Amino acid sequence: MLSLAIFAVYRQTLVAFDLLSVSSMSSSQILALSCPDRPGIVAAVTGLLQSAGGNITEAQQYNDPQSDMFFMRVAFDIDDPLAFRGAFDTLSKSFNMDWRLRDASRAKRVLILVSKFDHCLVDLLYRTRLGELDMDIVGIVSNHPRDALRISNLHGAPFYHLPITKSTKADQEARIDALIEETDTEIVVLARYMQILSDDLTHRLIGRCVNIHHSFLPGFKGARPYHQAHRRGVKMIGATAHFVTPDLDEGPIIVQGVEPITHADTAARLVAKGRSIEQRVLSRAVKALIEDRVFLNGARTVVFD
Amino acid sequence: MLSLAIFAVYRQTLVAFDLLSVSSMSSSQILALSCPDRPGIVAAVTGLLQSAGGNITEAQQYNDPQSDMFFMRVAFDIDDPLAFRGAFDTLSKSFNMDWRLRDASRAKRVLILVSKFDHCLVDLLYRTRLGELDMDIVGIVSNHPRDALRISNLHGAPFYHLPITKSTKADQEARIDALIEETDTEIVVLARYMQILSDDLTHRLIGRCVNIHHSFLPGFKGARPYHQAHRRGVKMIGATAHFVTPDLDEGPIIVQGVEPITHADTAARLVAKGRSIEQRVLSRAVKALIEDRVFLNGARTVVFD
Amino acid sequence: MLSLAIFAVYRQTLVAFDLLSVSSMSSSQILALSCPDRPGIVAAVTGLLQSAGGNITEAQQYNDPQSDMFFMRVAFDIDDPLAFRGAFDTLSKSFNMDWRLRDASRAKRVLILVSKFDHCLVDLLYRTRLGELDMDIVGIVSNHPRDALRISNLHGAPFYHLPITKSTKADQEARIDALIEETDTEIVVLARYMQILSDDLTHRLIGRCVNIHHSFLPGFKGARPYHQAHRRGVKMIGATAHFVTPDLDEGPIIVQGVEPITHADTAARLVAKGRSIEQRVLSRAVKALIEDRVFLNGARTVVFD
Amino acid sequence: MLSLAIFAVYRQTLVAFDLLSVSSMSSSQILALSCPDRPGIVAAVTGLLQSAGGNITEAQQYNDPQSDMFFMRVAFDIDDPLAFRGAFDTLSKSFNMDWRLRDASRAKRVLILVSKFDHCLVDLLYRTRLGELDMDIVGIVSNHPRDALRISNLHGAPFYHLPITKSTKADQEARIDALIEETDTEIVVLARYMQILSDDLTHRLIGRCVNIHHSFLPGFKGARPYHQAHRRGVKMIGATAHFVTPDLDEGPIIVQGVEPITHADTAARLVAKGRSIEQRVLSRAVKALIEDRVFLNGARTVVFD
Repeated sequence: MLSLAIFAVYRQTLVAFDLLSVSSMSSSQILALSCPDRPGIVAAVTGLLQSAGGNITEAQQYNDPQSDMFFMRVAFDIDDPLAFRGAFDTLSKSFNMDWRLRDASRAKRVLILVSKFDHCLVDLLYRTRLGELDMDIVGIVSNHPRDALRISNLHGAPFYHLPITKSTKADQEARIDALIEETDTEIVVLARYMQILSDDLTHRLIGRCVNIHHSFLPGFKGARPYHQAHRRGVKMIGATAHFVTPDLDEGPIIVQGVEPITHADTAARLVAKGRSIEQRVLSRAVKALIEDRVFLNGARTVVFD
Repeated sequence: MLSLAIFAVYRQTLVAFDLLSVSSMSSSQILALSCPDRPGIVAAVTGLLQSAGGNITEAQQYNDPQSDMFFMRVAFDIDDPLAFRGAFDTLSKSFNMDWRLRDASRAKRVLILVSKFDHCLVDLLYRTRLGELDMDIVGIVSNHPRDALRISNLHGAPFYHLPITKSTKADQEARIDALIEETDTEIVVLARYMQILSDDLTHRLIGRCVNIHHSFLPGFKGARPYHQAHRRGVKMIGATAHFVTPDLDEGPIIVQGVEPITHADTAARLVAKGRSIEQRVLSRAVKALIEDRVFLNGARTVVFD
Repeated sequence: MLSLAIFAVYRQTLVAFDLLSVSSMSSSQILALSCPDRPGIVAAVTGLLQSAGGNITEAQQYNDPQSDMFFMRVAFDIDDPLAFRGAFDTLSKSFNMDWRLRDASRAKRVLILVSKFDHCLVDLLYRTRLGELDMDIVGIVSNHPRDALRISNLHGAPFYHLPITKSTKADQEARIDALIEETDTEIVVLARYMQILSDDLTHRLIGRCVNIHHSFLPGFKGARPYHQAHRRGVKMIGATAHFVTPDLDEGPIIVQGVEPITHADTAARLVAKGRSIEQRVLSRAVKALIEDRVFLNGARTVVFD
Repeated sequence: MLSLAIFAVYRQTLVAFDLLSVSSMSSSQILALSCPDRPGIVAAVTGLLQSAGGNITEAQQYNDPQSDMFFMRVAFDIDDPLAFRGAFDTLSKSFNMDWRLRDASRAKRVLILVSKFDHCLVDLLYRTRLGELDMDIVGIVSNHPRDALRISNLHGAPFYHLPITKSTKADQEARIDALIEETDTEIVVLARYMQILSDDLTHRLIGRCVNIHHSFLPGFKGARPYHQAHRRGVKMIGATAHFVTPDLDEGPIIVQGVEPITHADTAARLVAKGRSIEQRVLSRAVKALIEDRVFLNGARTVVFD
């Protein structure tokens, strides 16, 4: 454990060093913010960027007339991101902003939790290697041993077998929690991890933990959704990627996908078809998350494509 | 009422006359059947057709391993459909078949029930005129007066204003029921008819009455589903065409459709987007029904495309 | 002709009066602009809006790294739109902007051209009446007489029968051109108008004239695309809404849609399925156009959803 | 080479042995046939099945009114498949049938050709291991060396590096051809194999060789289709799985798929999005092929879902 803690400190030092080292050349940054809506936000943000020599390469905003909240994502190039960070910190206070600013070239640190159904894991790893998903997989956790997974090569991602029983549930979760701390995990992906996280951990991960549910929520909550769908005789099945919250299967939805089925599809075929949908939906949600495109908006989300 | 009754008799006479008159030339027929599965059904049916000089133009079958039921639809040309009907009647008994045989050139008689939301009615009428839907609209019933509908021209379809109040509900339904009888209605379409039919009428219409529900069932049952969908923050909305049963919103599903939405879609925009989906889904279900492509299979359906 | 000319003058007076009359109360405006990309555009535009007391309700921008062009659409509320217009005119010059600013509450003036295939016209009219399409249909032109259309009620839109023969083609187009002038038409919709406009008229309408092509371009250019698709044995068919340019079927694409088909779909069924796709695709394109969401970007378009 | 030839003989012996060994117990068989259409085919086939004690579990047929050809696929259980095979052989002659009959439990032998783009290979291997694709991968051929592929584990499938240059093209193809012979390959899958097969080999593989083309054919034939699509500014991209024929990119289409894109998608993002579509489309086509669901019908296909 000590070594992991030291590693985390080392990592943070690197991050700080990163921020310093880039200060002398142009850097790509991503700013994501939300705040109560009021006139002048876009002008203030883009005005500050302009005066700091920033050049916007992509920008999106949305104001929700119902919650009266404002959401904005700006990608920009700038010579002195540290100076901008300081100036923006001041500005953010006057608008009561919740915000993140980061170097776009630094991949997000992602921890993947999985059971023995590993099709989503396989897909996430392959897309990461292709460069489609720009993320740093700091670990793969499973409650099953390594050889319960079909996948043969984790490509260097550390694997943690953290078995779980009724009596060890709290312990196991504490180890996950420690792992999140030690690896500076920014995003936790439940890639068909069939265990329920505690309310406490869920609370601390709000807005950072995504789950793939194998149904088109809110239909077919609970267990064995494809079998439920087959029994109900629906003509389309789907999958839902959502933020994890203490309310099981009620978390804010990020991405959904569906495919048509027919009367001739058995429950087993629905499971097979569903795997493709789950892969597609989860990878889209993870991509949106690691690119800072997803915002919590009460029980809903804002997702900037 | 008397005149309607006479009209119905006249109509039945015509139907009988039709059957006689076509007996001397080749006729296109559609046979739809279901029965407990067992070996030899297809051979028996196609063998009988072959010996009767029939020529199959389209055939589909499905045996459900769960319900152990067999479903078949055959379209064929035959010189003497009446003789085949007699022979098939005998055959059907030995297989305990539930079956329908009809002249493909005769349009089905359809009664459409509507409230003041008439987008589905508009779509059904237009597709009927284009020839996409080959049906005989024997009447349009609304609980609102004619001028509550936006549509300007019903193209000759009789309009019946049958208002409803709590105290007249039973009466009003009796009038619908009488209309179904008098017009020899084969299919009843609830094209956004916002009233609930009684269990008794529903029972008698089982397998013949289709409703369009403005949600992707089983999600968002009940009232104002688009507003429910908006509150839940789903990323796709849909519509469901289903057989009407006494269990509200639980009828066997015939067709479903969805479209993606985003955080920027207000509830009002969901309603607008939903209208297109409802039109598309209901017209597909009606087309399948009037072409004898839909079979009840317990709580589910078999739909032969 | 004189009366039409007078009517056009009257109309322009009304527009001018509109602009004056709204100057004393808050008004919703839409600003659409494009210009060569360079740092500071967003800051300049939103800064000017902020200092003029404008409140942004929706904003989107995109800079194309290939063409190095910048595109922006801003919807905002403002008390004095005329003052802002003046100030923006000055600003726009320094950025070499191509721009439009208009009162969001004023419906765009749209002229629809149609042959005897009227399914798209039917759909556009119905969506207009529902309020989904906020447009002022200033006229419907057909080269066929009124009774060649199936639609029974044009709901007050003036109908112009402008027949065309080889020898009268230039004359007929001159009359269309005059109609566009006299009615102050802003958008011309070719809703399955089977005639080819001259290069000259096409040039003058660039960015303002949309056509629905009944194939998934660039596949199946030219005549009878559904029959081409059937012969080629594709498994999906589609439709394309595009800006009209002198290069037939090569105009910048605005919206495309597809649907799956099977081997069992005859060419006639493709035509029928295609009608639904055409309706959906054209109405989405028209909606984007009348809401100033579409920008020309060389041979391509930018479409802000 | 000798050993491969011996292995092939051994394999065929096993196949013959298979056929013998199953003759004493119920066996699942798949019959796929096509022939000129005429009355009585279904009755003859199902009648023979019935008299041979077969039990149909799935059946589909289609008669193409244009080519006047009939297509049928029947899955059935039977105690004595060898006896049925003999009887069917006789029957088939009287209908001039082209047919295949095989034990459903025996996986088809598939050879996969690939360049260094291995996303489709990865997907095919994973689905095979999951049991979604029931096939026996007899080999993987690449013109690039093993380490040019990203995939780390071929799970026992033999890998053949067959490099190609202009001068060795004929030789290389001869080696592929020999491999097909020696391994008794039934289906050849070009899983992004960027080389063109000779007319001669193509001819001999007609109906047995599938290619994935990374565009929605017939749009964007030829090289770099995603770049073509980007330049043309289409709003949807797709992929096409088709039979390989001497006419490049003109082979009969089996499966197509599309996804929406926007102006903001760069050519690089189209390539990335396209990979998912290619995987999905190719795996669906391969599944249909190994389950004997695909029939050639002139320049088109019949695909029974």
